[in-house]
Amino acid sequence: MRHTLLAFTLASLLALPALADEARPTPTTKELLAQSRPQEWRTPDPSNLLDMKLPGGHVLIELAPDFTPLHAANIRTMAHEHYFDGLAIVRVQDNFVTQWDDPAADDEDKARIKPLGTAKKTLPPEFTRAIDAKLEWTPLPDGDVYAPQVGFSEGFPVARDPASGREWIAHCYGTVGVARDVGPETGNGSALYAIIGQAPRGLDRNLAVAGRVIDGMERLSALPRGPAPMGFYTDKSQRLKIESLRLVADMPKAERPKIEVLRTDSPTFARLVEAKRNRRDAFYTVPAGKIDLCSVVIPSREAK
Amino acid sequence: MRHTLLAFTLASLLALPALADEARPTPTTKELLAQSRPQEWRTPDPSNLLDMKLPGGHVLIELAPDFTPLHAANIRTMAHEHYFDGLAIVRVQDNFVTQWDDPAADDEDKARIKPLGTAKKTLPPEFTRAIDAKLEWTPLPDGDVYAPQVGFSEGFPVARDPASGREWIAHCYGTVGVARDVGPETGNGSALYAIIGQAPRGLDRNLAVAGRVIDGMERLSALPRGPAPMGFYTDKSQRLKIESLRLVADMPKAERPKIEVLRTDSPTFARLVEAKRNRRDAFYTVPAGKIDLCSVVIPSREAK
Repeated sequence: MRHTLLAFTLASLLALPALADEARPTPTTKELLAQSRPQEWRTPDPSNLLDMKLPGGHVLIELAPDFTPLHAANIRTMAHEHYFDGLAIVRVQDNFVTQWDDPAADDEDKARIKPLGTAKKTLPPEFTRAIDAKLEWTPLPDGDVYAPQVGFSEGFPVARDPASGREWIAHCYGTVGVARDVGPETGNGSALYAIIGQAPRGLDRNLAVAGRVIDGMERLSALPRGPAPMGFYTDKSQRLKIESLRLVADMPKAERPKIEVLRTDSPTFARLVEAKRNRRDAFYTVPAGKIDLCSVVIPSREAK
Repeated sequence: MRHTLLAFTLASLLALPALADEARPTPTTKELLAQSRPQEWRTPDPSNLLDMKLPGGHVLIELAPDFTPLHAANIRTMAHEHYFDGLAIVRVQDNFVTQWDDPAADDEDKARIKPLGTAKKTLPPEFTRAIDAKLEWTPLPDGDVYAPQVGFSEGFPVARDPASGREWIAHCYGTVGVARDVGPETGNGSALYAIIGQAPRGLDRNLAVAGRVIDGMERLSALPRGPAPMGFYTDKSQRLKIESLRLVADMPKAERPKIEVLRTDSPTFARLVEAKRNRRDAFYTVPAGKIDLCSVVIPSREAK
């Protein structure tokens, strides 16, 4: 019998029997989450949660008003006014981004561009913010290629530069950013992208990060890649229509998605990070001893 | 007009007009490749190149016999004997791996498991190798979270530990590894996986790396994710059949894929790395100043 196991991201059930007589292996994510306490989980504020409905299902995005408050406010306004309904995923670039916006903006018929309603057309960049001691700060111990410090703040992967006193959400898998034109003030949140590959940390400090996908990431990452440069679709029929995008606070309570996210300042999160840094079991014989910021997964689960 | 540009991975054509009166921006990948000389490109040895045909098209994988010679030999044998033809992609785990093997091994009907032919059933692990000064070594300057040194060797992203005298191919996007059972000697190359998300560097030194996808990566990364734990498909109909997997050396010359890869010890490759480390143009106003190993893309192109 050949299991062709590769890695125990969720559970190492198949491997456990072999370990009966050995030292206790590193607990799995499943085991650690099963031991978590209810107060270690948080329910995202419905005013910061977007529910995007695609033909394949829902994608939940948590906004990051502590880092990009003007963008969060503008996106809330657009969602409230149903701006995103009927827009489309226009671009999927392999190992980079899935992007959605008003497809008319890319077509020749500019007269069909959807008006932004009461939302602002331009916003200050908000690419970084002043380090704020009042925000949660859960540092990672292993350094980073790009920034002097990395860790987690309010549920987001964050990089810091104490010398400049600035911090910013890092472009990791699942990070949602604000697409823009050339000028730094040209973004407004009407065009957004999600990272679907190796963390493109070179984008950090050059783009505003609106938030993070906390559920349904595979509905953005498994889409057909666009054939044009930068992954744009060449045929309108390739675009995936956004059926609706709602601010959860605007939804009737009975229809709201039930989701909770593990607090990044919780003991269980610390144990998960440590288990991934120093995984020892029958399969992993050489623990990495390290972890990089964007390899840490922040667990979400359906709320009861 | 709103371009909603995000990043200039391929070209920044739309942004260039705005730069007419400004300092010369960092050259784009397209510009740098256009200036490359023919001798900076290499044609992969057909004895080290696999052509996997899926319903959606071809995936080309370059083997790494300098790092995993026994696995390369075994995979060559299996490809030569058409072992992989009719096998299937059985697992796609979001932000992790796409894996293919003999689906009968995962099913209840073990009698249908395909015999390995003259290939070996088990192999020594080959998870790391002794550092060899005879191999190309093109270091990256910005450090690494996981290893003391990183760089490129013979066209592969490589990590090194001078203290132990060992080196290994890193698990980056597109790296192809050898799936195995719990024991380190249980891999033989009949089950392989490709990395489709954030580099899972914790796998380094725990698995043998067979090679790297040099073309067609999107045919592995955009597949539907499997619903079972670890991304396994639950229904046989979800599996994607491997129509054929050929060692290119076994193919008639007229049918061989025409591909060449930029040498990782070439001046153009060095310029690409530097351009990505310190991108300055109308869009990127804050250069990262750094690059991590798995964010470096090794260009391939159709040979003339």
